[in-house]
Amino acid sequence: MSKQILILPGDGIGPEIVAEAVKVLEQANQQFGLGVELSYDELGGGAYDKYGVPLADETLERARQADAILLGAVGGPKWDTIDPALRPERGLLKIRSQLGLFGNLRPALLYPQLAAASSLKPEIVAGLDILIVRELTGGIYFGSPRENRVLENGERQAYDTLPYSESEIRRIAKVGFDMARVRSKKLCSVDKANVLASSQLWRTVVEEVAKDYPDVELSHMYVDNAAMQLVRAPKQFDVIVTDNMFGDILSDEASMLTGSIGMLPSASLDARNKGMYEPCHGSAPDIAGKGIANPLATILSVSMMLRYTFNQGAAADAIEQAVSVVLDQGLRTGDIWSEGCQKVGTREMGDAVVAAL
Amino acid sequence: MSKQILILPGDGIGPEIVAEAVKVLEQANQQFGLGVELSYDELGGGAYDKYGVPLADETLERARQADAILLGAVGGPKWDTIDPALRPERGLLKIRSQLGLFGNLRPALLYPQLAAASSLKPEIVAGLDILIVRELTGGIYFGSPRENRVLENGERQAYDTLPYSESEIRRIAKVGFDMARVRSKKLCSVDKANVLASSQLWRTVVEEVAKDYPDVELSHMYVDNAAMQLVRAPKQFDVIVTDNMFGDILSDEASMLTGSIGMLPSASLDARNKGMYEPCHGSAPDIAGKGIANPLATILSVSMMLRYTFNQGAAADAIEQAVSVVLDQGLRTGDIWSEGCQKVGTREMGDAVVAAL
Ligand SMILES: CC(C)[C@H](C(=O)O)[C@@H](O)C(=O)O
Ligand SMILES: CC(C)[C@H](C(=O)O)[C@@H](O)C(=O)O
Repeated sequence: MSKQILILPGDGIGPEIVAEAVKVLEQANQQFGLGVELSYDELGGGAYDKYGVPLADETLERARQADAILLGAVGGPKWDTIDPALRPERGLLKIRSQLGLFGNLRPALLYPQLAAASSLKPEIVAGLDILIVRELTGGIYFGSPRENRVLENGERQAYDTLPYSESEIRRIAKVGFDMARVRSKKLCSVDKANVLASSQLWRTVVEEVAKDYPDVELSHMYVDNAAMQLVRAPKQFDVIVTDNMFGDILSDEASMLTGSIGMLPSASLDARNKGMYEPCHGSAPDIAGKGIANPLATILSVSMMLRYTFNQGAAADAIEQAVSVVLDQGLRTGDIWSEGCQKVGTREMGDAVVAAL
Repeated sequence: MSKQILILPGDGIGPEIVAEAVKVLEQANQQFGLGVELSYDELGGGAYDKYGVPLADETLERARQADAILLGAVGGPKWDTIDPALRPERGLLKIRSQLGLFGNLRPALLYPQLAAASSLKPEIVAGLDILIVRELTGGIYFGSPRENRVLENGERQAYDTLPYSESEIRRIAKVGFDMARVRSKKLCSVDKANVLASSQLWRTVVEEVAKDYPDVELSHMYVDNAAMQLVRAPKQFDVIVTDNMFGDILSDEASMLTGSIGMLPSASLDARNKGMYEPCHGSAPDIAGKGIANPLATILSVSMMLRYTFNQGAAADAIEQAVSVVLDQGLRTGDIWSEGCQKVGTREMGDAVVAAL
């Protein structure tokens, strides 16, 4: 049976980096007989230009039909002044929500070859390998009511709602425990249970789920402390599970500990491990079209796709291995370049990974 | 006219560190003829033990009467299992809210003498001097409705509300701009306006306030990016203004960049600069009663009190200067100790600051 993959190159550097990732995917397809078939569409600013909305109904339908989605990145200054409801990121939020992609996996992995790029001292980050499991379709991102209104006293007021139900918490907690089980068997759940009602339920339900994972050691941490501990001693963490907003903040913080966000992939999975895969970095409009963007995060997103949606561990490993080989060869795009390495463009980097495969 | 200061030593190491700060305050009182008068009460776990609640009405009334409040820290494992509504931190939240202490100033300052303590590379943090202005009495910390309930389908659900009115945003924005004006004239407002309605109003109102501060350069940043940039290149920031929850997370992250959270004071001010002053660190129950806690953050909180509530810049400067002198002398409590320095206890450190004054 063929595997349908929808490619959404997106905006900014998206098309360039996705083109390289597709080359790698096609190479892996041949080598491992994966049987993938690709189709293309638009998401974000490009979709707004083409369809008038950041996610067209027909695109959403195509995404529903697909087995997996590869996304570049969305957004750019061109769309900064349009109606907020039509901005590129609304398309991203809508596709996450409509496809039920609640399980967001964001690894923060320090490649030994790039250890010098971190702003942290080498001994603090050497060997860093954290996985942040972020709830992606609930909480304050999608809670209603939310409103901008004028109060009786004439003042403007706006509010958002942060809701979590036990089923939403349970399913993401399970993802966290499952991941911890195949890693170091340590899970840290991050919340703000000393202040938030939603966090109190979060903590209660995570404790309940923990009963099914006696082999995993569970700890809880307040989000402010977690933000601190990630800077102080990040290697104390292995798998972190947290809500949508805290996950947004902490995963970006954690990714920056590695110093090379251009290397970090992500997966957003539904209940049956269908997923959307995208680099952690943004659309970098300032360098778009120059052929200098780093395609490795997108290439590694392909590896995550093969691992999590298609259960092709060997192919996934091979791609990760190929990336490691090109780093060993000293090839670097500008964002990860350092003295003594060879600076290459987006395409050369993609070609090198294909060659190393 | 005498200045009434209410001292709330709190829990854990609170009483020890506050005792040293009081010595310094009394010394400054004599030297600068400040005319301060001290009274004492309980907040947090100690208040729960004494009054059955973490903030008694009579304590709140005393706090209202006082010109300023010096707080140690609250909380500890002893009270971890009591009714959540009576836990120590509820007392802290209540006093902030009841006294209208909406303006929370949290400096993240790297002392050159302690540069090595940071987990970041020296060149990234040398000279770091950031001020985080956190909104402290609004947003999701105090928003209603908030509820734990059972939905019709039998599922438990909990939710919180994140509201901001324009007057709440305006007054904290003004604090941010005022602080920026006397520092480097750069203000970064942090929000999540691409997702939250409250953040959209936040950004709008901050822009409006900016019109009264043409000499201050305003920028906006999303909270996830701010969490990243603080790790990548923290010196790009000078004053950051943000909401209650984001401020909680980012100020802890920023403080940890210095590597010595035992050095960082904070102020929580109302509309007339009456304030509560406390160290950024917690009650550290593990080292309570051992006489080894670092009193410098609390001592520097006294300096902030003299500066912001009592307009005694010279006395405030003198205390900061005295702290710098003891650091130059090589005196260090355990938390900031490094090879070649002299390890001292809480009391010796306090005495040394008094002597240096
Ligand atoms: C673009 C934005 C809405 C999005 C988010 O906040 O989820 C992004 O920051 C991310 O983390 O994928
Ligand atoms: C104790 C807790 C409620 C408090 C907060 O979140 O405000 C603390 O973390 C702080 O930052 O002062």
